[in-house]
Amino acid sequence: MRPIFFLSDFGLEDPYAGVVKAVLWERAPGVPVLDLAHALPPQDLRRAAYALFEALPYLPEGAVVLAVVDPGVGTRRRAIVARGRRLYVGPDNGLFTLAWLLDPPTRAHEITRISPPSPTGILPLPGWAPGGHTFHGRDLFAPAAAHLALGRAPEELGPEVSFGDLVRLPLALTPGPEGEILTFDRFGNAITTLLEAPQGGLVEVTGKRIPIRNTFGEVEVGEAVAYLGSAGLLEIALHRGNARETLGLREGMPVVIIPPPTGLPHLADPPR
Amino acid sequence: MRPIFFLSDFGLEDPYAGVVKAVLWERAPGVPVLDLAHALPPQDLRRAAYALFEALPYLPEGAVVLAVVDPGVGTRRRAIVARGRRLYVGPDNGLFTLAWLLDPPTRAHEITRISPPSPTGILPLPGWAPGGHTFHGRDLFAPAAAHLALGRAPEELGPEVSFGDLVRLPLALTPGPEGEILTFDRFGNAITTLLEAPQGGLVEVTGKRIPIRNTFGEVEVGEAVAYLGSAGLLEIALHRGNARETLGLREGMPVVIIPPPTGLPHLADPPR
Amino acid sequence: MRPIFFLSDFGLEDPYAGVVKAVLWERAPGVPVLDLAHALPPQDLRRAAYALFEALPYLPEGAVVLAVVDPGVGTRRRAIVARGRRLYVGPDNGLFTLAWLLDPPTRAHEITRISPPSPTGILPLPGWAPGGHTFHGRDLFAPAAAHLALGRAPEELGPEVSFGDLVRLPLALTPGPEGEILTFDRFGNAITTLLEAPQGGLVEVTGKRIPIRNTFGEVEVGEAVAYLGSAGLLEIALHRGNARETLGLREGMPVVIIPPPTGLPHLADPPR
Repeated sequence: MRPIFFLSDFGLEDPYAGVVKAVLWERAPGVPVLDLAHALPPQDLRRAAYALFEALPYLPEGAVVLAVVDPGVGTRRRAIVARGRRLYVGPDNGLFTLAWLLDPPTRAHEITRISPPSPTGILPLPGWAPGGHTFHGRDLFAPAAAHLALGRAPEELGPEVSFGDLVRLPLALTPGPEGEILTFDRFGNAITTLLEAPQGGLVEVTGKRIPIRNTFGEVEVGEAVAYLGSAGLLEIALHRGNARETLGLREGMPVVIIPPPTGLPHLADPPR
Repeated sequence: MRPIFFLSDFGLEDPYAGVVKAVLWERAPGVPVLDLAHALPPQDLRRAAYALFEALPYLPEGAVVLAVVDPGVGTRRRAIVARGRRLYVGPDNGLFTLAWLLDPPTRAHEITRISPPSPTGILPLPGWAPGGHTFHGRDLFAPAAAHLALGRAPEELGPEVSFGDLVRLPLALTPGPEGEILTFDRFGNAITTLLEAPQGGLVEVTGKRIPIRNTFGEVEVGEAVAYLGSAGLLEIALHRGNARETLGLREGMPVVIIPPPTGLPHLADPPR
Repeated sequence: MRPIFFLSDFGLEDPYAGVVKAVLWERAPGVPVLDLAHALPPQDLRRAAYALFEALPYLPEGAVVLAVVDPGVGTRRRAIVARGRRLYVGPDNGLFTLAWLLDPPTRAHEITRISPPSPTGILPLPGWAPGGHTFHGRDLFAPAAAHLALGRAPEELGPEVSFGDLVRLPLALTPGPEGEILTFDRFGNAITTLLEAPQGGLVEVTGKRIPIRNTFGEVEVGEAVAYLGSAGLLEIALHRGNARETLGLREGMPVVIIPPPTGLPHLADPPR
């Protein structure tokens, strides 16, 4: 069976992620389900898009990527499955925008032919009709992911849709010099849309100029620093602090790289 | 082996859930353990009861449901195992109240005959005597759940107790029109004790009247709406907002359904 | 394969723990990975050291303990593997200090010979060079843990280092009477460095005297109480409350046991 990598904003304060796993278990008993993240900030598509970009290069080819961050559940947004070197299942709301820069799908299908899980082994309560229109993770996406994990064909899930018609977030990754703050991580580090971090240069954000180094270990505790983060994007951090709060950073803020002066000797990598 | 579905308020800030899994692993190596939720609000029995109700219809028959939300640990409350179409392990404090509406046990046993896990492969520290009386998840419930997962008999765990004597929370689910706010989910949606959500009707809570719709996508962003939630209970939400905070809702508040006027044409389901 | 018990401060708001699991999956497909805790307070080494102490007696011999709480990532701190009755992988920053009181390693190696995971199955982006120097959980520790889980030798990972040279936190566990507040758990209970909790005695902290009992169930709701916690350390709690906030406790505060008066009859254990 294909492993399922599962990302959501369901949190662990509610059983929603667990219910999705129960449905995966029912449809594909024993399928390996690996949690990517479940406490993403609720309904934050930029954060989800970044999380999938961060993880993607390490997800095995052929894996099923099940991602449910879905502020539009209950509206007319589509449910889709897309096929690149991995298989993607989720709402058509742009949350795969950055992941698909690395693994662009060649085909996509709307999920319309799926039988939702039906409650079993229970007594009916008078007047009770569970189901509702609000839990597509359980009723649509989990059955679709299980279908794919079992090796069945995506085209069985519904009609083909044009890859170009899928929703994209208005985000671009760029070598610079101009970009923006994409999102933040748990530690308050700002992740930008910039793909490069020229050593010896500076980053300008909200009127401040911040030195670019190899890691945040190269500045004193409490100082601001920019560096190439683990996803290959320029990040802005405070050494053992919270850059978001202390520097007053916000999503979408412009960020500009000021390269190191030319003609100067190249700043050597520090000894490691 | 029977899969174990595990719910607790242990959080992931401490290793308590992990230690329970280590004990399950020791007693039943390789047993499938599926997390339902571990960041339930500490010691909140209503929330736990709701979480188990939400998940129950999707848990396979024969599964072991291990639930540890236990404000009374260290007091005289009993530890129990109960047998319906699934097997329940946890404190006798009412946390299964709603789940058992759907899957009423036919027999129950107090857990008295269990050998707690003993530390192995360690050096003793002078004066150190781990164990204590406060971690029944590790010392009682995990060994009992592993026992059941291995297919062994519940009656080996201790004396039978009368199902009618088990503790229940003072909660009833009802088609209405009068109910109450049962609890809240992570997004601040209020879950009520009402089993119906008549389209075109209203819900009155804390002096406000809120329209009942199919989903929150049918009102504008920021507006209040009631709808049938994923558990089959009427919920009150703000479209992309937090109903609990914005509307000032609290647990136990009375909620009343005002049905749609009779004689009017039935409000059709919206196109989907 | 050896099971891997995985502890970190990565949280579930980001995919970092998930990426580590993806790398473990790639290097050792199907390896059992059991989560100990992932929402430890960021960069809090005392809390991490306590969490590992709490869990250790229940981790099977031969298991791999992968622990990543690493405020010094990107500095010159070493990455190590140590071999006791279990195998330890993590930064050399003291986070194993308390666990090693119970399971002192006999040999240790610096991790220097490891091939980091390389992104596969992706399109390169112009200018993009992922990797960075900041995610040793993914690039160093996960490959090392997978290596050990497969049964391969620790000495293949790098040169031997003296066990005595490994970093220790300045923490001692003691029968008392003088100790300190080690850390807090999620519920606001204070965990101390004291290994004993003499019934009928008192604990003095921040000018207050708190009775020592078997469990917090023996005092009224809202009252302070000390007892032997699940890790075998004296804890200070409020029955159904938050001791940290209500009593104004802080990490490192001195704690003194005042034993019960001699000559008095020994306080019997309460009936259970």
